[in-house]
Amino acid sequence: MIRINENYLKLQSSYLFVEIANRVSVYQQENPEADIIRLGIGDVTRALPPACTQAFSQGVKEMAVDATFRGYGPEQGYDFLRDKIAANDYQVRGADISSDEIFVSDGSKCDSANIQELFAGDIRLAIPDPVYPVYLDTNVMAGRTGEFSDGRYDKILYMDSLPENGFVPNLPAQPVDLIYLCFPNNPTGASISGDTLKLWVDYARENKALILYDAAYEAFIRDRSLPRSIFEIKGAREVAIEFRSFSKTAGFTGTRCAFTVVPKTCMAYDGNGRKHSLHALWNRRHSTKFNGVSYPVQRAAEAVYSQEGKVQVQELVDYYLNNAALIRKEMATLGFEFAGGENSPYIWVNCIRDAWEFFDLLLKKAGVVTTPGPGFGKCGEGFIRISAFNSYTNVEKAMTRIREALGAELS
Amino acid sequence: MIRINENYLKLQSSYLFVEIANRVSVYQQENPEADIIRLGIGDVTRALPPACTQAFSQGVKEMAVDATFRGYGPEQGYDFLRDKIAANDYQVRGADISSDEIFVSDGSKCDSANIQELFAGDIRLAIPDPVYPVYLDTNVMAGRTGEFSDGRYDKILYMDSLPENGFVPNLPAQPVDLIYLCFPNNPTGASISGDTLKLWVDYARENKALILYDAAYEAFIRDRSLPRSIFEIKGAREVAIEFRSFSKTAGFTGTRCAFTVVPKTCMAYDGNGRKHSLHALWNRRHSTKFNGVSYPVQRAAEAVYSQEGKVQVQELVDYYLNNAALIRKEMATLGFEFAGGENSPYIWVNCIRDAWEFFDLLLKKAGVVTTPGPGFGKCGEGFIRISAFNSYTNVEKAMTRIREALGAELS
Repeated sequence: MIRINENYLKLQSSYLFVEIANRVSVYQQENPEADIIRLGIGDVTRALPPACTQAFSQGVKEMAVDATFRGYGPEQGYDFLRDKIAANDYQVRGADISSDEIFVSDGSKCDSANIQELFAGDIRLAIPDPVYPVYLDTNVMAGRTGEFSDGRYDKILYMDSLPENGFVPNLPAQPVDLIYLCFPNNPTGASISGDTLKLWVDYARENKALILYDAAYEAFIRDRSLPRSIFEIKGAREVAIEFRSFSKTAGFTGTRCAFTVVPKTCMAYDGNGRKHSLHALWNRRHSTKFNGVSYPVQRAAEAVYSQEGKVQVQELVDYYLNNAALIRKEMATLGFEFAGGENSPYIWVNCIRDAWEFFDLLLKKAGVVTTPGPGFGKCGEGFIRISAFNSYTNVEKAMTRIREALGAELS
Repeated sequence: MIRINENYLKLQSSYLFVEIANRVSVYQQENPEADIIRLGIGDVTRALPPACTQAFSQGVKEMAVDATFRGYGPEQGYDFLRDKIAANDYQVRGADISSDEIFVSDGSKCDSANIQELFAGDIRLAIPDPVYPVYLDTNVMAGRTGEFSDGRYDKILYMDSLPENGFVPNLPAQPVDLIYLCFPNNPTGASISGDTLKLWVDYARENKALILYDAAYEAFIRDRSLPRSIFEIKGAREVAIEFRSFSKTAGFTGTRCAFTVVPKTCMAYDGNGRKHSLHALWNRRHSTKFNGVSYPVQRAAEAVYSQEGKVQVQELVDYYLNNAALIRKEMATLGFEFAGGENSPYIWVNCIRDAWEFFDLLLKKAGVVTTPGPGFGKCGEGFIRISAFNSYTNVEKAMTRIREALGAELS
């Protein structure tokens, strides 16, 4: 008899964004005329930079002719892309990362979901709360958690991110083996200083722990004192893996390209305490279960690093940061406390009431979709995430509508 | 202490194609002038069909303008593609499959690698020998096998595919839960009749087993009496999942698009014998760990089903089948026994000696890369796989060189 992986049965309801989509869909069906503005899911809205579409089109042209056609590429990505990533995202910032430590993939969601396969089933996990649900759900599927009760899975060390600690979790008070960190943070928008990140790297080194560092939003960092990669921190090469994406940097959410950095000096251990290279293990996983990113897409990603590409990407990110500034201003005017929106496209708003109730209010009274905090964890209770990914006009309109809806509610 | 998944340590040497690439690379370095012809890895060589590149380019153009830009798409694929797949690949052939049973992905390798995550750790597996290494390796990684000895992993029921059974395995003599089948077969090129496939479906129904049916090469079937999908077989909807790809059909190996069909009536069981929908489980996996295929790539795949696309794809596959016929003819002339090459791009040749030795001989004396049978399993000892994926000119040249090399060897 074919039996299922019963760990799937522990998963809570449906995936957050699916639930939101369902509620929006019901509302849209009941109000077909409603002009809904989506500031919920973190999805970009502006066209790909011209440098990228030009390179993308050129790549497609090459696929149309036998002489320049490309079949299977290297699973790890083409050198033309890996070299530019290593040089531009790492080496110029003093981070000692080489091309062959970069694994190009079709998305950071996939990579941050799949990476846990490399580790033993009974390691101790530290996961922030609130958090991008993928980290948690994939470990539930793999059987690393107990049952769900009172908003949390058994066997996970949840690291609270709250106003009290500036939404940067405290170091674990008990020993852990695998630590998920994400900065600039999704969902809170908080960033981490180099000094604080150094404390985490030191913790990992002392405890033979590993940090999975999600830096998908690094392009939004404008404060030059903040690290954009964990590999800018001394000692991180031995204890960290980093996830990066072109999704939010260059509008690739529908184009699909990302990468994961696994330094060759990054190690994990077997039951006898022998060291094993995580680079070798990830390479094995990547080449056995993945077949590389579409060639024209890799050409489009390469163009991010051209002279024009850099200018266009900067302009694109600045556009969303300008939206974020407007959202911050409006939330401040309305008297809400919030985090993020400065080096991040997300604004994390303390809504001083039940978050799903506030979500429904904003949907039904203002036609604005946000993301309810509890979807990201227990510490998200009473918060919503507002995303700056939309046109400036829409963000302006959304802020006006929210002001009117809340004014009407209060009056 | 961060500990690894020690199942990875059971994996044998490196992945087959990596080993071949290494040997070829060494030879090429030692003989920089050598004009190597690659009939090894099953990678297409001809340009994408014009209908596909036109649609691909058009998709890229849409990404260049805010008004037509697409961000995240549905993880399962766009309806425009799923609808065409359901209609053209299934419904017209009498297979009762609907659009929402189709999950578009970036590759059949990924899907056939990831599908095992849905099942319990201690199910009984039946895997053909020889076999596409991914089925086996991914189950090793997941801990479903014992140690490797004498060419095989403990705890797997290997299903021998040999000249005696026409390279179609016999039904398991002992009960199994999960069965991998691939027809037209990689690597043997063998195909399966509807009557024989019905025996497997009946077996699965009687034993509450599940069949994972890899039909990545179905486009090569020219014998109209053969099934192109397992869902053409009565009763399969309850006991089968099918993998399909645009890679070999339309030259998408470097473009990346495939799909998996999970009927809504396909069930598996928990420890208490309760039924669970595999469609729901795979949907959960797919939406948690995957973020959809690049939008322009999906447009390119959609064009496979246009009127011109169908003609062009047929022509493309015919071209490779014509190469296969030439290889068959040459192998027959040289007095070799072989299978495949009629409804398949692969010819499986009994080389009457050690396969890696024959591989090295063909590489060094003829400059032709093939794939040694043992890379696919113990039953591949004494066989090599020759692929028809190359230009006709190169295949002709390769056959001439092989004839000369073997002639010289025999004289």
